[in-house]
Amino acid sequence: MKLHFATSNINKLRELSTLLEQKLISVPLDLQEIQTTDLHELLKFKLQQAYEKLHAPVIVEDTSLYFNAWNKLPGPLIKWFLEGMGLEGLVKALSPFEDKSAHAVCCLALTDDGKNIHFFEGKIKGLIVEPRGSRKFGWDAIFQATGKQETFSEMSIKEKNHISPRGIAAAKFKQFLRLRAERK
Amino acid sequence: MKLHFATSNINKLRELSTLLEQKLISVPLDLQEIQTTDLHELLKFKLQQAYEKLHAPVIVEDTSLYFNAWNKLPGPLIKWFLEGMGLEGLVKALSPFEDKSAHAVCCLALTDDGKNIHFFEGKIKGLIVEPRGSRKFGWDAIFQATGKQETFSEMSIKEKNHISPRGIAAAKFKQFLRLRAERK
Repeated sequence: MKLHFATSNINKLRELSTLLEQKLISVPLDLQEIQTTDLHELLKFKLQQAYEKLHAPVIVEDTSLYFNAWNKLPGPLIKWFLEGMGLEGLVKALSPFEDKSAHAVCCLALTDDGKNIHFFEGKIKGLIVEPRGSRKFGWDAIFQATGKQETFSEMSIKEKNHISPRGIAAAKFKQFLRLRAERK
Repeated sequence: MKLHFATSNINKLRELSTLLEQKLISVPLDLQEIQTTDLHELLKFKLQQAYEKLHAPVIVEDTSLYFNAWNKLPGPLIKWFLEGMGLEGLVKALSPFEDKSAHAVCCLALTDDGKNIHFFEGKIKGLIVEPRGSRKFGWDAIFQATGKQETFSEMSIKEKNHISPRGIAAAKFKQFLRLRAERK
């Protein structure tokens, strides 16, 4: 099955292709994202727009980072926080709060027909720390997973993909595709 | 002219009716708001949805609060910040930043035909302070306009409406309606 991935983020495209061990057809659609802290609602809205344009099986993805001291924030709005404050600003804004715990969620959503949607989710807990490692990929430099000494940025790609929310979500998705292929 | 105001916020409805000295027809539509820090883009998207449902002259409104230390944040995303952190949390998150200056922008957008859009904007500068006064209306309790000693919450409604971004935007809108009525 040919799979379209609606994203304009080249890093996400590469990472997901690797994780799925499958070539994805990149469709850099200009999709509107609605204001919400509900990841499924956000993905549903993106997926519907993507399907209306493609009329072919398509996946969309979104990743949320939640600071437990801030309730549902930044959540899916993390990219605006990064754009506005940068990594240092984010860590600084959290500094007066005792609780530095966070959790990250990645969700992949697939539709074949524009109606039924399958969600594949990966979650991980961790701490927000001063930036360490490469700054290239979102908030990887400030997230240290529970039980680990390195930030996501400091890990090898293999190590990161093994525990990252996107890695977990992709593993679930891969299994779904395999089971479906077997059934046919 | 009968004017519809697409909002589900009863406080905004009351305030705008008072400011315009005109009864507005409240239409509590469930409008999607897109993720953006561009107020005009946000309003355009809301207005198009509202017009598609009503096919009648309609106004939408949005107010943004920008902390200068945070660039374009919270901006139009302020309601999510309030929901996530509350007033105290917002002030706390800003506390490590030396610059406490902020500006608030209110924008009203009107369409008669679903195509042409008129924008009416009000802006004000000020400081973010510890909450003082009633907590009922958004971020009024933590915004102290430049040159004033009171937060918006501590002011009389008359005094607030005279200088508030919504007051200024509404005054521009009122003048537009008056001029248009005279021309007819």
